[in-house]
This record gives sequence, C-alpha cells and structure tokens, in this order.
Amino acid sequence: MGNSQWRRFRHFCYNILHNTDDDTRINRLINYILIALIISNVSAVLLESVNPIYRSYHFYFDLFENISIAIFSIEYLLRLWSIVDSQPELPAWKVRCKWLISGEAIIDLFAILPAYLNFFVHFDLRVLRILRLVRLLKLTRYFVSLQILLAVIRREKGSFQAVIFILMMMIVMAASGVYIAENKAQPDDFGSIPQAMWWAVVTLTTVGYGDVTPVTVLGKILGAIITILGVGLAALPAGILATGLANELNARQQHLQQEFRELLIADEVDLIQDQEKIEKIRRKVGLRKEQTHEILMQLMREQSLEEKELEKKPYHYCPHCGEKLNHLREK
Amino acid sequence: MGNSQWRRFRHFCYNILHNTDDDTRINRLINYILIALIISNVSAVLLESVNPIYRSYHFYFDLFENISIAIFSIEYLLRLWSIVDSQPELPAWKVRCKWLISGEAIIDLFAILPAYLNFFVHFDLRVLRILRLVRLLKLTRYFVSLQILLAVIRREKGSFQAVIFILMMMIVMAASGVYIAENKAQPDDFGSIPQAMWWAVVTLTTVGYGDVTPVTVLGKILGAIITILGVGLAALPAGILATGLANELNARQQHLQQEFRELLIADEVDLIQDQEKIEKIRRKVGLRKEQTHEILMQLMREQSLEEKELEKKPYHYCPHCGEKLNHLREK
Amino acid sequence: MGNSQWRRFRHFCYNILHNTDDDTRINRLINYILIALIISNVSAVLLESVNPIYRSYHFYFDLFENISIAIFSIEYLLRLWSIVDSQPELPAWKVRCKWLISGEAIIDLFAILPAYLNFFVHFDLRVLRILRLVRLLKLTRYFVSLQILLAVIRREKGSFQAVIFILMMMIVMAASGVYIAENKAQPDDFGSIPQAMWWAVVTLTTVGYGDVTPVTVLGKILGAIITILGVGLAALPAGILATGLANELNARQQHLQQEFRELLIADEVDLIQDQEKIEKIRRKVGLRKEQTHEILMQLMREQSLEEKELEKKPYHYCPHCGEKLNHLREK
Amino acid sequence: MGNSQWRRFRHFCYNILHNTDDDTRINRLINYILIALIISNVSAVLLESVNPIYRSYHFYFDLFENISIAIFSIEYLLRLWSIVDSQPELPAWKVRCKWLISGEAIIDLFAILPAYLNFFVHFDLRVLRILRLVRLLKLTRYFVSLQILLAVIRREKGSFQAVIFILMMMIVMAASGVYIAENKAQPDDFGSIPQAMWWAVVTLTTVGYGDVTPVTVLGKILGAIITILGVGLAALPAGILATGLANELNARQQHLQQEFRELLIADEVDLIQDQEKIEKIRRKVGLRKEQTHEILMQLMREQSLEEKELEKKPYHYCPHCGEKLNHLREK
Repeated sequence: MGNSQWRRFRHFCYNILHNTDDDTRINRLINYILIALIISNVSAVLLESVNPIYRSYHFYFDLFENISIAIFSIEYLLRLWSIVDSQPELPAWKVRCKWLISGEAIIDLFAILPAYLNFFVHFDLRVLRILRLVRLLKLTRYFVSLQILLAVIRREKGSFQAVIFILMMMIVMAASGVYIAENKAQPDDFGSIPQAMWWAVVTLTTVGYGDVTPVTVLGKILGAIITILGVGLAALPAGILATGLANELNARQQHLQQEFRELLIADEVDLIQDQEKIEKIRRKVGLRKEQTHEILMQLMREQSLEEKELEKKPYHYCPHCGEKLNHLREK
Repeated sequence: MGNSQWRRFRHFCYNILHNTDDDTRINRLINYILIALIISNVSAVLLESVNPIYRSYHFYFDLFENISIAIFSIEYLLRLWSIVDSQPELPAWKVRCKWLISGEAIIDLFAILPAYLNFFVHFDLRVLRILRLVRLLKLTRYFVSLQILLAVIRREKGSFQAVIFILMMMIVMAASGVYIAENKAQPDDFGSIPQAMWWAVVTLTTVGYGDVTPVTVLGKILGAIITILGVGLAALPAGILATGLANELNARQQHLQQEFRELLIADEVDLIQDQEKIEKIRRKVGLRKEQTHEILMQLMREQSLEEKELEKKPYHYCPHCGEKLNHLREK
Repeated sequence: MGNSQWRRFRHFCYNILHNTDDDTRINRLINYILIALIISNVSAVLLESVNPIYRSYHFYFDLFENISIAIFSIEYLLRLWSIVDSQPELPAWKVRCKWLISGEAIIDLFAILPAYLNFFVHFDLRVLRILRLVRLLKLTRYFVSLQILLAVIRREKGSFQAVIFILMMMIVMAASGVYIAENKAQPDDFGSIPQAMWWAVVTLTTVGYGDVTPVTVLGKILGAIITILGVGLAALPAGILATGLANELNARQQHLQQEFRELLIADEVDLIQDQEKIEKIRRKVGLRKEQTHEILMQLMREQSLEEKELEKKPYHYCPHCGEKLNHLREK
Repeated sequence: MGNSQWRRFRHFCYNILHNTDDDTRINRLINYILIALIISNVSAVLLESVNPIYRSYHFYFDLFENISIAIFSIEYLLRLWSIVDSQPELPAWKVRCKWLISGEAIIDLFAILPAYLNFFVHFDLRVLRILRLVRLLKLTRYFVSLQILLAVIRREKGSFQAVIFILMMMIVMAASGVYIAENKAQPDDFGSIPQAMWWAVVTLTTVGYGDVTPVTVLGKILGAIITILGVGLAALPAGILATGLANELNARQQHLQQEFRELLIADEVDLIQDQEKIEKIRRKVGLRKEQTHEILMQLMREQSLEEKELEKKPYHYCPHCGEKLNHLREK
C-alpha cells in the first residue's frame, strides 16, 4: 500500500471517528455499531453479576469481553492515528499528544486499560466489573444536548458549590439537633452525630426511607422543621438550573443574532439561500435548528417591517432639493 | 333524503365533531356527552376490576360496554365521513386517508378495536381492561393547554434525552457501587447489579420506599452521595421545562406582536374594533385571550405614547427657516 | 349620639377594617389583635383535639370559643356596616350586598356560622372543630405576597388543569399496569385497580411511603418506569409556576414603566420628589418597593444617558439654516 | 516597636483578614489555614460524639479544642483591632463598634463565647458541642456565590412568607382531615390533630417515611389529594427561586451595562485596555467575570456594528444637492 493510499485511509478513519460534520451512510453505520457495542458491554456487565447466569454462560461472556477489548483497542489506536487530519498544519506528534490528554481520549483509555492491567495485577472480579462500566462514558460523545447541560452546570459551578455548602451545613446542624433529641430514646440509630447524619441526608433530600425516624416529640418537631427546610433546599438546584439554562440559551441566541446581523450588513449572506453558511454559524454557536430558524424568521420579519415602514413614510426625498433618496435604503 | 340533505347533514356532523371554532349550544352539548361517556367508560373499567362489584353487576357492565362500543364506532365513522368538509378543495378519499393516519384517528381506532378483535381472539380479561383504558386518551382532544405542554416537551426532546441518559448512567453506577458495598451484608436484596438497580431507581428519584436500604457504613456513605445527586437530577427536568415553557410563550408572543405590527403598518386592522381578526390571529399563534389582551394593550399604549411625544414637540418645522423637521422624529 | 357622630364612627371603622392605605398606630394595633385572635383560635382547636387537655380545661376552651364568636360576629357586622364608605357615591344597600357576596365576606361568615347553627343542629364535635379551622382563612386578608401567587395560579389555570389531567391519566395507567403485574403475588394490596391507585399516587408524587411496594420482577420494572415519569411530572408544576411568576412580574413591571413614561411625557411627575404619586401607582400595579425603585432608577439613568448622548451629537442645528435647535430636546 | 511599625502591622493584618481585593500568596495561605481549622473543628465535634473514639482520644480532643479557641480568639481580636484601616477617615472606636455589631463579628464571637462561658456555667457536654458547630458559619465569609443566593432569598422574603403560610394552612387542614378519617382506626398514631400533623408534614413535603400511613379508604382518598397538593406546594419555592435568581442577575446585568454605557459616552473608558476600571465596576455590581465579559463583548459588537452600518451608507450628503444628510442615521 503506497503512502497516498495510507493517507486516504487515514482521512477515511478521521471522517468516521472524528468528523461529526461528515454525515455519510457508512459513517453513521459504524457509529451505530460502536454505540450498540458499548450498550452490549454494559448489559453484559449487569448480567454477569447475576451468579446463575454467569455460571451457565461463563465462556460466552469471556469471549464477548475479549472481542470487545480488541475492537475498543483498535478504535483507540485508529483515533490516535487519524486525529492528525484535524489540524494538518501542525506536526503530527503535537496533535496526537493534545488528543491523548483530552477528556474523551482518557475515557477511551480507561475503558480498555483495566483489562490489560488485569494480566499483571489480579483485580477482584466485582471491582473489575465496575471499572468496565467506564465504557458507558464513551456514549457521552454521541449526545449533543448533553453539552449544553454540562456547559450550564460548569457555568453555575459557584452557585452549586454554595448549594453543597448550605446542604453540608444543614446536614451537620440537623444531625446534631436530632442527635440531642433522640439519643436517649434510640441509642442504636442516633448514637452519635455521624450516625444521625444518615437520617439527616435521607430527610433533607426528601427521600425518606423510613428506616430511621424520630420518635420523641422534640425529635418530631425538629424533624418537621428540617423536612420543610429540605423542600426549600431541593428547590435551589432547580431554580439555579432553570436560570442557568435560560441565560445560556439567551447568550447563544444573541450571539447568533449578532453574527447574522453582521453578515447582513456586510451583504455576505442571503438568509433564504445560503443554507450552508447559516448551518456553519449555527454549529459554531451550538443552537438547535428550530431555534436558529426562529431567529432567522424574526430577522426577516424585522427587515420586511422596516421596508414597509419606509414605504409608508413620506420622506423618500431629500429635504433640501427634493430628489428621490430611497435607494439609500436598498441594502 | 336527497344529495343536498346528505351534504347538509355531513356539514352538521363536521361542525360538531371537527370544527372547534363553531361554538353553538348543540355542539357543546354533544361534546359534553362524549366526554361524560369517556369518563364513565374509564370508571367502569376501574370498578369492574373490583371482583365483588363485577360479580354482582356483571350484566349491566357488559350492557354499558356494548352501548359504548356502538356509540364510539358511530362517532368514528361519522368523523371519517364528515372530515371531507375540512378541505373541500381536495378529493374526499385523500382527506379521509390523511385523517385515518393522524394521531387522534389512531387513538379513536384503538379505543374500539380490542372489543371487535375479542370476537376472534380471546384476550385475557385483565389485558382487555387495560386496552379499554386507551379511551382515556380520547380526552386529550378537549384539552387546549395540553398542546403547549406537549409542544414544549417535543421541542426540548434533546434535553430530555440527555437527562434520561444521565439518569441511566447514574442508575447503573449507583447500583454497581451499592452492589459492591452491600452484597455480602444483604445477599437477598443486593445479590446482583440488576437487583440493586431497584434500590438505585427508588433512591435517585427521591421516592425512597425504604423496602431496601443500605445497612453497611460504606453503603450508607455511597447512599448519601447518590441521594444528594438525586436531588440535583430531579432538578434537571424542572429547569428544562421552566426554560422551555418561557421560550415557547416568548416566541408566540413575539410572533403575535409582529403580526399585529404588520397589520398596523398596513392600516389593515383597528385594535379596538376588529375583534374577529384579532381572534383569528390569536388562534393561529395559539395564545390565551389575556396574553393577547396584554400585548394589544402594550401596542396601544406605545402608539398613544408616541403620539403624545410628537404632540409635545412644538416644532414640526424649523422655527428659524420654516423647513420641515419631522425627520427629527425618526430616531 | 348624633348623625354626624355615627358617621364619624363609621368612617373610623372603615379605616381600621377596610382601608389598608390608612397606616396609623391604632389601625395596626387592632389588626394585630385580630390576627392574634385567629391564631389563638386555631391553636385552641388543635389543643382541644388532645383528649386529656380538653377534659382538664373544658371550661376555659368553651369560654374562649364564646368570646371569640362574639368578637368575630361584631367584626363581621362592623365590616358590613362600614363598607359603605368605600364607595360613598353608591346607595348603601348596593355596596353592602356587593360586599356580602365577596370572597372575604363569605370566609368571615363561614368562620362564625357553624357556631350559630350548632344551636339548632348538633354537629359531631370533631366536624365542628374542622369547620372552626375555616377561621384560618381569615388570615389571607393580611398577606400581600399571597395575592401575586394566587394571581399566577389563576392565570396558569389552564396549564394546571392539563397537569392534573396528565396526572390522572398516569395514575390510572400506572395502577392498571401494576395491578396486572402484582395482582397474583399480592392480592391484598393490589386486589383491584382502585386499590392499586393508592400505590400509584404515592409513587408518582415521589412520596413513597413504602407501605405497598411491588415485589415481582415485572412489577419492579413497571414501578421503575413510573417512578422516573413521576420525577418528570413533579417538574411540571415547578416549571409552570416559574414561568408564570416571571411573566406576572414582567407584565407588572412593564405596566409600571408605561405609567411612569406617560406621566413623564405629560410632565406630571417628578421622579425624585413626587413620592406620593409614585407610591399610589406602585400600589395600583401591585409591585414591591424595591422593584419600583429599580424601574425608577433605570428610567432616570435612561433619561440622563439620553441627555448626555444628545450633548455629544454635533447635530444641534437645523440642517437647512444652521440655527440652533437643541431646545427641541429640552423636554 | 514604634508607632509606624504598629501601623504597618495593623495594615498587614487588615489586608489579610478584611481586604478581599488584596490577593497575595501570604493572604491566601493564612485564609486556607483558617478554613482548614474551621473544618477540623467541625470534624472534631462530629467525632467526639462517637463515644468509643472520645474515650480513647479524650486528651487530644481537649488539646485541639484549647488551641482552636486560642487561635480563634486571636483572630477575633486582630480583626477588631485592624478593622480601623477600612475607613481611616472615621474615628477608630466608631469603626470598631460598627464592626462589633455586624453579622460576621457576631458569628465570630459566638464561635468562641461558649468555651469561655463554660468556665462559669457548666453546660451539658452535648449542648456545648452543638454550640461549637456555630464555627461552621465562619465559612460563609469565604463563599461569594452564597451572597447572591442570600440576596435573592432576602428579596423574595414576602413570597417565601406566603409559601410558609400556605404550608402551615395545608398542614393544619390535612392533619384535621386525616384525624377525622383515621382517628378510630389508628388511635395511637392519629389520636389528636397535633399528632396527625407529623403525618401531614411528612406527606406534604413528599418525604414519606411510611412510619404512619392512612389505612381507611377515606383516609387514603384524603391522603392522595394531600399528596398531589404537596407536589404543587414543593414546586412553589423552586418557581420563586428561579424567578428571583433570574431577576437578580438581570438587574445586575442591566446595572453593569448602564455603567459601561455611561463611561463609553463620557469617553472615560476603553473596553479593551482599562481592565482595572472594568474589574472595579464588576466587583461593585457583583457579577462573575464571564458574565461581565459577555456584556462587554455585546457592547463592543454593537459598537462595531453601528460603525459598519454607517460605513455602508455611501451617502453622508445628498447626492443631488450636496447637503449634509447624517441625521438620516439617527433612526
């Protein structure tokens, strides 16, 4: 195989494994196979933990695991090899190193590493299973809406830290209070503050198993207050997320609008015909097609409204000499 | 009965069964009867499942079921027959086929089909009952606010998929973790990962039955972390829905505003007198009457404000040279 | 006592019992006494239900109840008598009839009626207690923020109806599904669909008592799906309320802004000095002081910004004759 | 040590303990030590409550407590001493008194006071532990995002009062209803209304321990209704918080925008170079860096857009008569 054939094959791998813009049939097929393989792997881990099933089909589970490891290893190597096509202007080793330390590469590595390490160190079988579940994270690559959610959570990091701090404070306070109230009545369940924290967590999150409940009057009054505060606390992340999501979407929409307006002024885009250009901007900003469509519709309506308003206005002529001026508006 | 009489009867059926704009007394009466019949049917299904009641009133339940089937069948046929009046310009068979594959027609069909199939295949009685409950879905036709909610859920489909994915990932991870921690202490309830998933679902959704709870220290610490993450997770759909609803309403309000502004500029509408035109636009956009009213009020206030501002400016012409100055207003 | 003295006393009663704008010391004192009396009444009802307490202090509870009835009756009559001062231009009987059928008058009536009816019909003591709790609703009069919440709930009535409909549909479907799955394993708890509905409600609302839980595999899988849907369902009212509250506040703020703008153009208000006028508008629109303050600040900033911008623009002169024109902007 | 050396040391203390703008290495180090000490203190309190641990390490716990008290006392005195540098223009005693009655000073005092009072009055050991947990509140000083959350909660105080009122009303009503329904069937758990309130709180907050559940048909129907209302109630704080947070952020963003616009018009700031000025405004308004960045980007885009629009219009003068036409831009 000649050099150019290798190069063509590498570009083919790049398009399939890295280039999400390249939406061909073969591309989609291979990605669906990879998704199916990941889901099968996770299902296998779940089923293996059922002892009778594992004992009966021991051989097939091990076979499937070995095949999976082989495929994931090849996928990892091909990704590493073909990533250079993403930035052809940089030296190959630099692009590869950069990819190696990226989040998705680390997940891909952790999905196969435990199986190889198992040759040297013998893990407990159950721990090895959990480590295999990391493969589930490989799916994150295929979910686009997840990115916006994660962006919002990253953005509102500070607020969530504050919520965790409030929660911690309330858990400690609630556990201490109920420890004093219930210590003598239920020395087994409320024997120390750390023990009482289990009740505090279960109550403040409104889970309420009921395996430990206050029985004294003071404990019940305290429990009622803590429970009500718990409802308020559970409301905090919902409120933060709602606001965060709204702001994120708003920021992106404004960004898109500005981009379009700039192109419109520079006469570089036709909102009806240049679908490719619009699509490219939409991807850059990261909005859904319908949301982009709405913004486009609004811009177009504004334009036509402006034109109609201009037509209605008697002032098409220079106020000084009376010559027609409306070609000024023909942008 | 002559051809024109048939046609008049068909149009009468069309108005009652399809035309929601036609708000006459007979129309409302028949729709209330149909709603009452659906609710009675569902109540009958619920009561039939109580064995002593079913045994005593066996005959009446079967009679009522047969009458219902007859009425729903007639309703279905009349709907199919009269739908042609919705688009008189198209051939009748085309309009009917289009309706047959619409969502509401399929629900209507599934509400009567099991009863007919029962002649050929004998269903288990309890399964037949569940299939009869599909009639409950026939009520969706009469709820207008449901449409906005469904539109938002459809619009935020991607976000909800991401939430389901996060939830699935967390359920699998939580179940695996607690399986390792609790497997030895409670082999009955945490004997395998699929078994532990019941606990994980009940905990992550903050339902917390308490039929299965961790008892080891490690299990409780893991449980506490999962519980807290569960609160955050439960906040995601609330945040997405709040943002989605706000965006949907916003988009509709802007749409309405634009429509009114266009009409105002074209001098084609009088915001106070043309109630019919306004009502038509309101229905097209799908907003409530009060919301439309608010937008109208705002537009009218803006208009009168503009006029007052103009009146305040004493000079329409330059006081020095007499040249027209009204372009100054165009800011 | 002369006619004018009666009239003065009536106006005094009106100011205390109806006029919330009249914020004198005596007014506040009497309202605090009434609030304290309502709370004491409710506390008495709660304590009376504890048998040993009621048996020991029987006499004092009855005495307190009789005094309360007397005071509430006098309050009711004085309110009815003095309401005429709210609209002095209308005939007295008309104003009184209008008040009699208002929500607050009906609550006031129901707070005293059962005690009088008790002379004729003998209620069960426990039912009589519940009826006395209606007095709690008399407190709604004193909560201003409650009005906005109630306005939002009334406004989003349609959406909440849709949520209730979805909930009912899901309860019936969930109960039917789990009834089929668990009927044979637990005939006591899932013997009929209505019985299974208790489990469905407890699960869909994420309360999860754990008194009834599915035990079969099919039942647990169904239960898991229903539980996850329950989290989504619980998110609906939060989303609707968040959007509704935001819209309500937005509408009020825009209303306020428009009112101020109109006054500013008509030169009828000075945003810094006319505190009384601003206060009156604020009350009419129903916003908090800080929110009004923010809108005022923004309007003032806009004004000063506009002025600064005008000063910066070189265009103070008529483009035709070159005479100064900046007095045009001095509004 | 001379007077100026004292003064320099006081300023050094001020920078470390009060001045959050002074971000040097020594400053950060000391603050991290203080944070670690607070967390260690809280951990010690939790561990001391475990009897076997306390008995074994009695001596070390007491030693650590004494050292902590010493450090916190010194911290308190240094803060009190050095606060005068915050407002050098005021007399020292006035600044110190003002600080003494501030929230953070009171928390600092309560963190050390119980240990000193313990010399005179002997507290119960468990109560003393809870009082030591007040030290946890000293951490609030280091969380910036907490301030926005607290500001929102303070702002929406009225709404939360209304929610608490609705909750109280619903608890009383629900408890009374279920008391009537369940009193005879379960006299132990529903013997009086106050007793039934425990069930009402646990149900309305959707915690649902399951230690007390209705067993009669009427009780279950009532319970189902109350449970559904509970979901709606739990939605209220989430909705209020989401709206409150959105409004707070919006108000701050508008404030920031106005400040920047004013500076831009006065030509007093260069959005790219004057990072210090921008930082100062950002801190005053209390927004995050990225949010400020977005507003800046938008302002800059608007500016460049405006300029481009002007450039596109080829005619600053009427092409026919040569008169200046730049007022056309003022739309």
